[in-house]
Amino acid sequence: MKLGRILRSSPDGDVARIVSVEPERKRVIDLAYAEQLRLRARGATAETARRLAVTVFPSSMTTAISEGRHFLDAAHEAVASRADEATIPIDGVTWLAAIDPPAIRDPVAFRVHLEHYFKKIAHQLHPNHYRMPAYYKGSTARLFGHDATIPWPSYSDFVDYELELGFVLARGGHNLTPDECEDMIFGVTIFNDFSARDQQDPEMRLTLGPTLCKDFGNALGPWITTIDEVGDPLNLQMIARVNGEEWSRGVSSGMRWSPAELIAYISTGDDLRPGDVLGSGTVGGGSGYEIDRKLAPGNVVELEVERLGVLRNRLGPKETRRWSPGEEERREGVGEMRAVAGR
Amino acid sequence: MKLGRILRSSPDGDVARIVSVEPERKRVIDLAYAEQLRLRARGATAETARRLAVTVFPSSMTTAISEGRHFLDAAHEAVASRADEATIPIDGVTWLAAIDPPAIRDPVAFRVHLEHYFKKIAHQLHPNHYRMPAYYKGSTARLFGHDATIPWPSYSDFVDYELELGFVLARGGHNLTPDECEDMIFGVTIFNDFSARDQQDPEMRLTLGPTLCKDFGNALGPWITTIDEVGDPLNLQMIARVNGEEWSRGVSSGMRWSPAELIAYISTGDDLRPGDVLGSGTVGGGSGYEIDRKLAPGNVVELEVERLGVLRNRLGPKETRRWSPGEEERREGVGEMRAVAGR
Repeated sequence: MKLGRILRSSPDGDVARIVSVEPERKRVIDLAYAEQLRLRARGATAETARRLAVTVFPSSMTTAISEGRHFLDAAHEAVASRADEATIPIDGVTWLAAIDPPAIRDPVAFRVHLEHYFKKIAHQLHPNHYRMPAYYKGSTARLFGHDATIPWPSYSDFVDYELELGFVLARGGHNLTPDECEDMIFGVTIFNDFSARDQQDPEMRLTLGPTLCKDFGNALGPWITTIDEVGDPLNLQMIARVNGEEWSRGVSSGMRWSPAELIAYISTGDDLRPGDVLGSGTVGGGSGYEIDRKLAPGNVVELEVERLGVLRNRLGPKETRRWSPGEEERREGVGEMRAVAGR
Repeated sequence: MKLGRILRSSPDGDVARIVSVEPERKRVIDLAYAEQLRLRARGATAETARRLAVTVFPSSMTTAISEGRHFLDAAHEAVASRADEATIPIDGVTWLAAIDPPAIRDPVAFRVHLEHYFKKIAHQLHPNHYRMPAYYKGSTARLFGHDATIPWPSYSDFVDYELELGFVLARGGHNLTPDECEDMIFGVTIFNDFSARDQQDPEMRLTLGPTLCKDFGNALGPWITTIDEVGDPLNLQMIARVNGEEWSRGVSSGMRWSPAELIAYISTGDDLRPGDVLGSGTVGGGSGYEIDRKLAPGNVVELEVERLGVLRNRLGPKETRRWSPGEEERREGVGEMRAVAGR
């Protein structure tokens, strides 16, 4: 099954709805509405059918995945029962990020991208990168869906794409082994880990990890393909196009640690939660930086992955810089906090 | 007002409840229950009063803060109206982390800690640390409350405390100026950013930021003191004790960027959300690392901050290491993913 999130208008304003996606039939199915019809046919009153349906199919994909197997079982049942009556033509829908994850963690799993990146920034590649599956934690606050425009951050002249898979976790856990993580993946989506290269190197040299260079906007979508439909996610053709021209092409094979190993590694300390996104890391050559090409405001980036669809985003105009910490050295304290308005 | 979260038993199992805390009267007030009584006295039926009350005072502190001013107004009204009938003695309550934040961001705002840390690891302190308010993103998955036992991670022999404030944001925003962030703080809590020092240096040298060295458990609490009760949060006495012995003492003055500047800086790229936690960074001398002392399993760490209370946590026994990526170099791909169980 393919599952996404779209915006629909309602008397309470726009609301996020979970849909089952049938790209070959050019339609999406509003699962809460299909479920409501199914329940009514089984004798539920209109109000109770509506209340139950939006509880099983809420706005949050993470909340839905947190239902465990009940979510997919109910989705299949709703589609089998009432798909035609809950259908929306796929053209013209407003897509949201396919998921609202509690956490995004992204390793440097592909060797070629790792070596390209460190060569580019002329920074020594620490040999432990070959021994430790290092990852960074992304912001979950600015995630964009398919066809959304990503604002170009005010502090950058070099925004780049990163061609990655996003593995969506089915359940949580702590201190697991790779064997225990083999059935942990709910589905796979396309992850464009947009990066401001001119901000990334200065930030990463301070050793606290990427922050503003990554957190101005990531794209996730167009939908999540459940793992049973993906087959082997580590053998998928991956292509990046800019304004229709192919810039990158690769295959998802060659991760130095398997998704199950990465998930187990994270869980040795941290807790995993249903809906967490694990990036695959950028595939070798899967960024403009590696091939000496730069995006510009207005460019349209399309990431296409076999069996997962096409994730397309336009880069918007540069935001206005309203404040910057400046070049002055801050060695001493700012002294007393300025008055904070009471509440 | 002081606001915390506790666990209470119910026919559906233990549930998280938001309480108003009155330490001087040795009591907490269950806000949803007080609100329910208030609504019933105004004519609401029992079931509707209960439904409204748990909507205004849900289990999630972040959801409550997302109500805007309505939350604090309603809390004051509930306490004024029905505190005595909704009182629970403070002794014996089970505390949860005072908040379930969407994001934790933690800068190195205090110069003394910055310089101590880099001297300890014998790693060159990059001069840009004096110009850029670098921060790392914490995991939100393993947050512990007051009196909770923090499991000692399997991969460390050197777990340390970090004595910090946690600023809880009242609202969200993007691309703000420091002036616009002056009234952004909902309240302040104590943040113990527990750290595995022997894991931290190897991780940070890989430049993707701290992960397992920080994400095995942070403590936040005992409660949040709203900003109107804190006065100037940058002039508070801060003390760390281990097994009752004072190890660190400092004052929260001397942040090199003010909270409003840090919040504005983050917002230039990322989105802020209500309930986000901004750490103050560790105050100078506010960790065992800086004073050459090490914690051991079973130690009790108390962080006391003027006007904010005492946050006490015991370190539990070392977890069993169930899997490790090993010492072998990973240069080539792991090949095909092993079979992933279908759903």
